[in-house]
Amino acid sequence: MIAQYIDANRQRFLDELLELIRIPSISTLPEHKPDVDRAAAMVASRLSEAGLENTEIIPTGRHPLVYADWLHAPGKPVVLCYGHYDVQPADPLELWTTPPFDPQIRDGNIHARGACDDKGQMYMHVKAMETLLRVHGRLPVNVKFLIEGEEEVGGVSIAKYVPANREKLKADVALVSDTALYAEGLPTLCVGLRGLIYLEVAARGPSRDLHSGLYGGAAPNAVFGLVQLLAKAKDEEGRILIPGVYEGVAEPDPAEIGSWRRLPFDEAAFLSDEVGSARLTGEPDRMVLERVWSRPTFEVHGVGGGFTGAGSKTVIPAEALAKVSFRLVPDQDPDHVIAAFRRWVERETPPGIQTEVRVLSASPAIVVNPDHAAIRAAASAFNEVMGSECVYIRSGGSVPIVGDFAKHLGMPTVMMGFGLPDDRLHSPNEKFKLENYYTGIQTAARFLELYGGSA
Amino acid sequence: MIAQYIDANRQRFLDELLELIRIPSISTLPEHKPDVDRAAAMVASRLSEAGLENTEIIPTGRHPLVYADWLHAPGKPVVLCYGHYDVQPADPLELWTTPPFDPQIRDGNIHARGACDDKGQMYMHVKAMETLLRVHGRLPVNVKFLIEGEEEVGGVSIAKYVPANREKLKADVALVSDTALYAEGLPTLCVGLRGLIYLEVAARGPSRDLHSGLYGGAAPNAVFGLVQLLAKAKDEEGRILIPGVYEGVAEPDPAEIGSWRRLPFDEAAFLSDEVGSARLTGEPDRMVLERVWSRPTFEVHGVGGGFTGAGSKTVIPAEALAKVSFRLVPDQDPDHVIAAFRRWVERETPPGIQTEVRVLSASPAIVVNPDHAAIRAAASAFNEVMGSECVYIRSGGSVPIVGDFAKHLGMPTVMMGFGLPDDRLHSPNEKFKLENYYTGIQTAARFLELYGGSA
Repeated sequence: MIAQYIDANRQRFLDELLELIRIPSISTLPEHKPDVDRAAAMVASRLSEAGLENTEIIPTGRHPLVYADWLHAPGKPVVLCYGHYDVQPADPLELWTTPPFDPQIRDGNIHARGACDDKGQMYMHVKAMETLLRVHGRLPVNVKFLIEGEEEVGGVSIAKYVPANREKLKADVALVSDTALYAEGLPTLCVGLRGLIYLEVAARGPSRDLHSGLYGGAAPNAVFGLVQLLAKAKDEEGRILIPGVYEGVAEPDPAEIGSWRRLPFDEAAFLSDEVGSARLTGEPDRMVLERVWSRPTFEVHGVGGGFTGAGSKTVIPAEALAKVSFRLVPDQDPDHVIAAFRRWVERETPPGIQTEVRVLSASPAIVVNPDHAAIRAAASAFNEVMGSECVYIRSGGSVPIVGDFAKHLGMPTVMMGFGLPDDRLHSPNEKFKLENYYTGIQTAARFLELYGGSA
Repeated sequence: MIAQYIDANRQRFLDELLELIRIPSISTLPEHKPDVDRAAAMVASRLSEAGLENTEIIPTGRHPLVYADWLHAPGKPVVLCYGHYDVQPADPLELWTTPPFDPQIRDGNIHARGACDDKGQMYMHVKAMETLLRVHGRLPVNVKFLIEGEEEVGGVSIAKYVPANREKLKADVALVSDTALYAEGLPTLCVGLRGLIYLEVAARGPSRDLHSGLYGGAAPNAVFGLVQLLAKAKDEEGRILIPGVYEGVAEPDPAEIGSWRRLPFDEAAFLSDEVGSARLTGEPDRMVLERVWSRPTFEVHGVGGGFTGAGSKTVIPAEALAKVSFRLVPDQDPDHVIAAFRRWVERETPPGIQTEVRVLSASPAIVVNPDHAAIRAAASAFNEVMGSECVYIRSGGSVPIVGDFAKHLGMPTVMMGFGLPDDRLHSPNEKFKLENYYTGIQTAARFLELYGGSA
């Protein structure tokens, strides 16, 4: 029934999506503010048309949130569907084969900015609801939608809205389709995200920049002091040398590691096509997927201060600043890592240099229990619709909204995405496989059926 | 006779200098180009009026050079007087007690931009010539003047002019008054300058900036790789760990070290008033004056690449660049140090990173033999005029023109300056002690008498 309804409405489902994609809702560019508002209004209309209720366009300090719900399944779980209707800028325009906001179907793909990230994936949820409501006259679970327009600019408004609206948003699980299949045709659930601690380390040496001729040899150098400090954080292979940072690090279950080993990961292609360096680094006794999914990292993002312009300037810098971060894995405690880092910085700062550590943000890793009823339902839906066994992966990055849902609403998130690794998100010629759009609608609908126990 | 002539002309000598100072000949600001030209013309006129001959204003790619000579002392040495008529910008203007180009005499000092650096000191030479010519009707040696207008912007034109005009500029010794007395009332000859090798080290990791969540743990980081490399260049006290760099380093004569120990150097005041850091660094078995005058250094001036803006950006930088330098001492060979550095960079670059070393400039250290006839004459003149024993110091900095004179004209330089350590060169409220102006005229004249053997 579900499949037939989707099949019968293929063209309209596509046309509606293309209409949404044509709106250049670039959230970071002020001149596109009217487009962003127009996209929010269209999403709200479509939710109402699909049969959702209580649709709201919620003003914020920047771009509106869109809310809707359908809450007529007493005793059934509540699912919060999250997505975003804003997109990245499209430049450099000259690298696009066809214009970014004039979507074209080529080789079975929708080519356009936002086709995959996240208009196409977000709209799958809307069409899944329409399908269920038209086919069954009701939804198998209770559903709430919260769609934002600032995902590409940091998600400030939703991060404020969620903790301030706990009752309204309360649900059993969140459903997010903003990730990718591990490979084409391979149903994939993301069940882990690394956490992130972002820090600044400020260093002071002399009270002002000094002439390196007149003072060089006797005056401490803030940039070099910071360089000497930071270099001690890791060995050359990438093992973190800061005492205490590895405390609490949980090894993934051997079954999970085993499943990663079976993934079609090609280390040579990863090195040459994605990283592009002379060789990879990292803990040599760990396979690459462990290094990026289940091991903590310490990264230096930049060192400011001193002279880096054209030509020569012989300055002993008075001040320097490093941007650094830790990626965290289960069960590292962010506060514990911050404290360990502060102790280490205090102890290892070179003579003559004064350092200060500032914490910009800190969030723990996220893991979703694969035995959670919603994850089991999602895996079954995947298996049924796509006809093959679902793989469980993690991501080395952080998805702040998933952390916010865990922290403020106490619920896990089903990360069920239908993008592909080569969809070129944020880049020219972004695409979304058309068949995956329909598969996504069907899988999302089937997931809700299974989760609601109406299978 | 000399002293009486100077005394009889005190007011005119001062008025002439103040007239020159009133011209805002700021070489770096294009809007002051007419002032720079006016200053050059005034210097040329004053040289002719003093009795110099063959006066020329020599056009260059930027600001003119002024040349003049008096070559009627056959069999006597030739002295090349060097100075500069350009000045630093005066901002921030609000920090000046009186306007920078309206010179005022307060507390026995001339307060103005350029009063000491270098109009006052350069003009001492002009007035010394006038004095000698008026008193004796002739000069005791042959004299050439070469005055530039780009000293504060890198001296590009004179650096081209000197090697292209070797015959014209040929002399036995250069006389430069652009340095300071070690302390008030202490006659000082600078007999050593450190050399300088300025380098860039470029590092490459991934082929593009990567997301530190998705790749962190496996992808090399160009900034961190460069940080790890540079940190190995020195131990925490400042000893250079790059093999081969200390080869050829000559220890100063024990007598020279002994004389440094007798200088009124106050390490506590140096730390608190000049450097302003928590403590000094540097080789602990060397006194501070050794560290800054007779020991090589390795300095990191800045590290570019990656993210250092406000907020958080989780990037694994693809590229990084460090600006570094070595200060060289006798008898280090710049080419040998560069080769040692290249070998070390190649060997110590962390896995996954590719580095490239670029040499921006390289010049050896300069030492002047204190037994040279010109230095002995300068010391005697100092002792006679100032009534106390001359001290021999070095400077940790480089004076490129002194290196050029050594390299292209094969002659040493008498660095005989009359500034004071607190003259605030390049800063608001620059000053020059009025009495030192007259002392400088008298000492320069007496130096030429003694050097010419007409004492």
